[in-house]
Amino acid sequence: MSTLRIDPATPADVPVIRDLIRELAEFERLTHEAKATEEQLRDALFGPQPAAEVLIARMGDEVAGFALYFHNFSTFVGRRGLYLEDLFVRPRFRGLGCGAALLKRLARIAVERNCGRMEWSVLDWNQRAIDFYRSLGAVPMNEWTTYRLTGEALQKLARAE
Amino acid sequence: MSTLRIDPATPADVPVIRDLIRELAEFERLTHEAKATEEQLRDALFGPQPAAEVLIARMGDEVAGFALYFHNFSTFVGRRGLYLEDLFVRPRFRGLGCGAALLKRLARIAVERNCGRMEWSVLDWNQRAIDFYRSLGAVPMNEWTTYRLTGEALQKLARAE
Repeated sequence: MSTLRIDPATPADVPVIRDLIRELAEFERLTHEAKATEEQLRDALFGPQPAAEVLIARMGDEVAGFALYFHNFSTFVGRRGLYLEDLFVRPRFRGLGCGAALLKRLARIAVERNCGRMEWSVLDWNQRAIDFYRSLGAVPMNEWTTYRLTGEALQKLARAE
Repeated sequence: MSTLRIDPATPADVPVIRDLIRELAEFERLTHEAKATEEQLRDALFGPQPAAEVLIARMGDEVAGFALYFHNFSTFVGRRGLYLEDLFVRPRFRGLGCGAALLKRLARIAVERNCGRMEWSVLDWNQRAIDFYRSLGAVPMNEWTTYRLTGEALQKLARAE
């Protein structure tokens, strides 16, 4: 069996990260929303003010999956947290421990950086993922709903007197 | 009537921000979770690597409320977003437009910084807030649930082989 390796992404990984984001969007049935270009990703991950970081999972020479994360902040805890924006393992590499390995590495990063917690959002129909996250001790924030303001509604509020 | 003013917080505002966070925690029935100290807040807001920013709403000389926010990142949009972690208006200043003024200023900041969207989380029983957010055009992400890993479960995953 090929060896599983988890490494921080380098600029050379930007094209495959772009591919992985598209594949994740297909899985989430949100392909129409996946609009990021390689140039945007290069700037966000490796520009002068990085907005996020990426871990790449490889089985032998093949890219098996990725995790993209950044820091949020909890006013109650008074510390940064680690927010996992995307976690994706390509279908043919599932069941081989890639997802667990990515999450373990993220937990280690969170602890090393003195983060109070690690959070991520899950689509309610993704039962396989939910069962996996619960088995790790993750707790659903059932009493909270995220609201989003975007597009013309955001522009309109920004222009309001 | 006193004039409403919205300003970015300064280091001198840290003690009142600490008070406002406690008052928000009481309102959210989460007082036991509000553990941040003034020192932690000073470091997070005004230290060498700020983790968040704050706007303060004042009516005349009195602090009426605050908003604490930071940037997240959308892989689909390929751009930073603005995440509003806390929005709070003291009860005696409600109904005077403080919340709307804070949100307008945040929307303007989001647009100026080329953010694709603005997001925040709301407790499901806070109907007054939900009605207000919907009136601005904010959309609930009903199909998503946030999962949180913290405390011993986080430590355990970080130590796992």
